[in-house]
Amino acid sequence: MARKMIKYSLMIPGPTPIPTRVLSAMNHDMIGHRGPLFSAVMKEVMELLRWAYDTKNEIFIYPSSGTGGMEVAVVNTLSPGDKVIVLNIGNFGSRFVKICKAYGVDVNDVKFERGKPADPAVLEAELKKGPVKAVLFQQNETSTGVLNDVETLAKTVRKNQLDALVIVDAVSGMMAAPLKTDEWDLDVVVSGSQKAFMVPPGVSAVSISARAWKAHASSKCPKHYWDWALMKEEAPKGHTYTTPPESLIFGMREGLRMLKEEGKENVFARHKFNRDLCRTAAKALGLKLLADDAHASPAVTAISPPAGIDGEEVRKLMREDFNVEVAPGQGELKSKIFRIGHLGYVDSLDIIGAFAALEVLFKRLGAKTDFGAGVKAAMEML
Amino acid sequence: MARKMIKYSLMIPGPTPIPTRVLSAMNHDMIGHRGPLFSAVMKEVMELLRWAYDTKNEIFIYPSSGTGGMEVAVVNTLSPGDKVIVLNIGNFGSRFVKICKAYGVDVNDVKFERGKPADPAVLEAELKKGPVKAVLFQQNETSTGVLNDVETLAKTVRKNQLDALVIVDAVSGMMAAPLKTDEWDLDVVVSGSQKAFMVPPGVSAVSISARAWKAHASSKCPKHYWDWALMKEEAPKGHTYTTPPESLIFGMREGLRMLKEEGKENVFARHKFNRDLCRTAAKALGLKLLADDAHASPAVTAISPPAGIDGEEVRKLMREDFNVEVAPGQGELKSKIFRIGHLGYVDSLDIIGAFAALEVLFKRLGAKTDFGAGVKAAMEML
Repeated sequence: MARKMIKYSLMIPGPTPIPTRVLSAMNHDMIGHRGPLFSAVMKEVMELLRWAYDTKNEIFIYPSSGTGGMEVAVVNTLSPGDKVIVLNIGNFGSRFVKICKAYGVDVNDVKFERGKPADPAVLEAELKKGPVKAVLFQQNETSTGVLNDVETLAKTVRKNQLDALVIVDAVSGMMAAPLKTDEWDLDVVVSGSQKAFMVPPGVSAVSISARAWKAHASSKCPKHYWDWALMKEEAPKGHTYTTPPESLIFGMREGLRMLKEEGKENVFARHKFNRDLCRTAAKALGLKLLADDAHASPAVTAISPPAGIDGEEVRKLMREDFNVEVAPGQGELKSKIFRIGHLGYVDSLDIIGAFAALEVLFKRLGAKTDFGAGVKAAMEML
Repeated sequence: MARKMIKYSLMIPGPTPIPTRVLSAMNHDMIGHRGPLFSAVMKEVMELLRWAYDTKNEIFIYPSSGTGGMEVAVVNTLSPGDKVIVLNIGNFGSRFVKICKAYGVDVNDVKFERGKPADPAVLEAELKKGPVKAVLFQQNETSTGVLNDVETLAKTVRKNQLDALVIVDAVSGMMAAPLKTDEWDLDVVVSGSQKAFMVPPGVSAVSISARAWKAHASSKCPKHYWDWALMKEEAPKGHTYTTPPESLIFGMREGLRMLKEEGKENVFARHKFNRDLCRTAAKALGLKLLADDAHASPAVTAISPPAGIDGEEVRKLMREDFNVEVAPGQGELKSKIFRIGHLGYVDSLDIIGAFAALEVLFKRLGAKTDFGAGVKAAMEML
């Protein structure tokens, strides 16, 4: 290698790089979190979140990672012994299963082949077997780079069991792909700060439908920190039950303002374009993509390395030789794939740069990829 | 009033003002949270936290507020039906009671008069009634400004019931007053970023003794996000189970470095001096202090306003006329007191400034306080 890169490139599916505008907004003094100054900030964040979610529902914010938000959804709506369906298309589907099981919820773990989305026909068949309290699934499965058809899955639930809750983990999908909380009648939707919102990790948000509030009233999962009842008392004042992570809330406000300025359709188009760019480059190199085109994620792409090269080796060498951080395969996919994150504050030239590094690496490792073909194919899209 | 202040003064017991060094450290790009760069940061934070805690025990960090850390302690060590004692000297004692009850733990809620610390003789009498799984209490009770004698309380537990867990909420006390986790044989100690660590809210930390690990093995409280078992797998790599709040972790590293540079004894002496300064000023004005001198908190002072003046009115006017944010009375103390926070990045001249504002306010409201006496008494201490 001729020279080492001094500049670090973060190409993982969250946390994403943070725009200077967001970092600067976070560089803010602390203010009283029970006073009017902070209330005004929170109220703006809530309004912007409702815009992002496309909802009139109440949204609560928690100091937690996205997984905490998933737990919020489960413990506030379900009770031990409740029957639920998890549409499990990857690692985060498995996480929903684990959370439900930890609380004694009776989970029907409906697994799909890794790289495939949840099949609405399979869901329908499961729903016909008997009533369930809820159906839980990901909008975007980060571990495989697959986008579920949330609208069709939600409609399938409603058609077969009108009162079942639809609980969507949209942590890595929110604002990367369209999601219409109210129009699609989604009961609980979970998001996280560190994805397309372009904010550091540490905040999760959940929206709550009338149906979800009704479920909360009879939910028997033990809870305190996550309890909607405690949040509900504080929310009208623009407060949270416990101390809010102020820096990250300032960041959320700025990240969401930036997205609103860009415009929702432009944000979605950007993510879609960058997904296609990434896939085009990979295909031009003859690399196998885990997800097919129809269900490919606009947030992250899972790629098999050329024959004979280990995914973890790619990750290690990309880091050591090019200062580019790509993501590993998780669980059963470890070493078999690597993943390129292209959600949030990542753009086309970043992706082309990452492929330039990948191509040099593959050549050095003796792969039979057509040197330059990936980058060139991507360039032709610009 | 002659003129409004343009400068905002935050005088609440957390979040505290943040030093520019910490804010600057947080102004940091995101890095891969499963890579070696972030591992090195986490390992330094862990080492510094062990220094702050005075422990060799494992410490885990969670994206959460301090209340989340309290829940971590409960759900990882206890089971529904377990008998525990909560030494309840204020609002955060009541919070421990609520958390325990939410998880079906059988709580003996031992309440003490607001403004008083937990009495070791009362604890001993309760311990003699029969075995308990744990005793839970605050190091510093934020709502009343009272410091418990953690060492004596812990010794009282050990003397009477060798195997009972000692669980300490040190969120607002850690680094404001001495706490020796190992020497005092404390099983779980909870801290939070936004107090004497001088970092924005959003991170809690818990230390875990061998006795607490043993309790974890048989604990039947449902848990996932908080589960030590899931954290244990990741900790040796310098990772966390879910995505860590990177910005705040960078802040924790810098805040802890600053405290270590200042020296532990100096940090404690600073908090003690500022407590005494605050109390001297208040006494010179003839104001009633909720806590007596022997148990007064080095983090926050609860003060009764002059006769005929409402605590909430003081808070409102301090904010509107002087841009100074003081804290309210909580629960049953609402309106009866106001609280001045003097932990973390607050120093003597800030406290004198706050008293200057208070004295002008009291005079304007027609209180019979000796105008100038509070500030002068404080100045004589400098």
